Amino acid sequence: MIEWFEDLSLGMRFKSETVQISEDDIKQFAAEFDPQPFHLDDEAAQGTIFKGLAASGWHTAALAMRLAVQTRPFGPHPLIGLGVDGLRWMLPVRPNDILHLEGEVVSLTLSRTKPQGTVLVKWTLSS
Amino acid sequence: MIEWFEDLSLGMRFKSETVQISEDDIKQFAAEFDPQPFHLDDEAAQGTIFKGLAASGWHTAALAMRLAVQTRPFGPHPLIGLGVDGLRWMLPVRPNDILHLEGEVVSLTLSRTKPQGTVLVKWTLSS
Repeated sequence: MIEWFEDLSLGMRFKSETVQISEDDIKQFAAEFDPQPFHLDDEAAQGTIFKGLAASGWHTAALAMRLAVQTRPFGPHPLIGLGVDGLRWMLPVRPNDILHLEGEVVSLTLSRTKPQGTVLVKWTLSS
Repeated sequence: MIEWFEDLSLGMRFKSETVQISEDDIKQFAAEFDPQPFHLDDEAAQGTIFKGLAASGWHTAALAMRLAVQTRPFGPHPLIGLGVDGLRWMLPVRPNDILHLEGEVVSLTLSRTKPQGTVLVKWTLSS
């Protein structure tokens, strides 16, 4: 159980529960945030680079956040992001894909002024 | 009007319409993707680092995507992200904030094999 910053260590790994994404989820998110044919309509998506309906990359990022929050990598402490580097969308996420998230602690920086720290985690979402 | 890759140029700028984010929007997105007190409940948020309800960073990223899609920076061509670097959440987004997105073309790389290219755009979402 993680309670203090010192309870974290380099190389520590987290593994989330799974989440299944439905065709309706994909279309609803896209209609609100990323209204492009390959995220909205399976037929229209066939003729695109995705060759079929694919989730918005921001939808998959948001699902990764949900899985990260559920994983409670910092125990009772919140998960507050300062930023993200090296985000890459490697493969399309399709209707009914079952996804999970894995994390690995890459660096730990203790605050010089407050009883807290910054943790760099490499997160990987995959099916 | 952008029609061909050659119509883009370094330093070209895009400016989006505006979008207003409501307290309900913030809570709904958070309930689905980032269920932490400072995104869900104004009273609970007062005692946190945010000192009041703030939108999930992934919600603001998704809104930026919507504004980018509406802006049609590549004319009739789709906006397909390969990835993101240097994403930083600088300030909390609050209920009723009115946001807009600005973009600047930072680099242009023509494909060596296909009639297409990769555009690096620096996007800034602000109120």
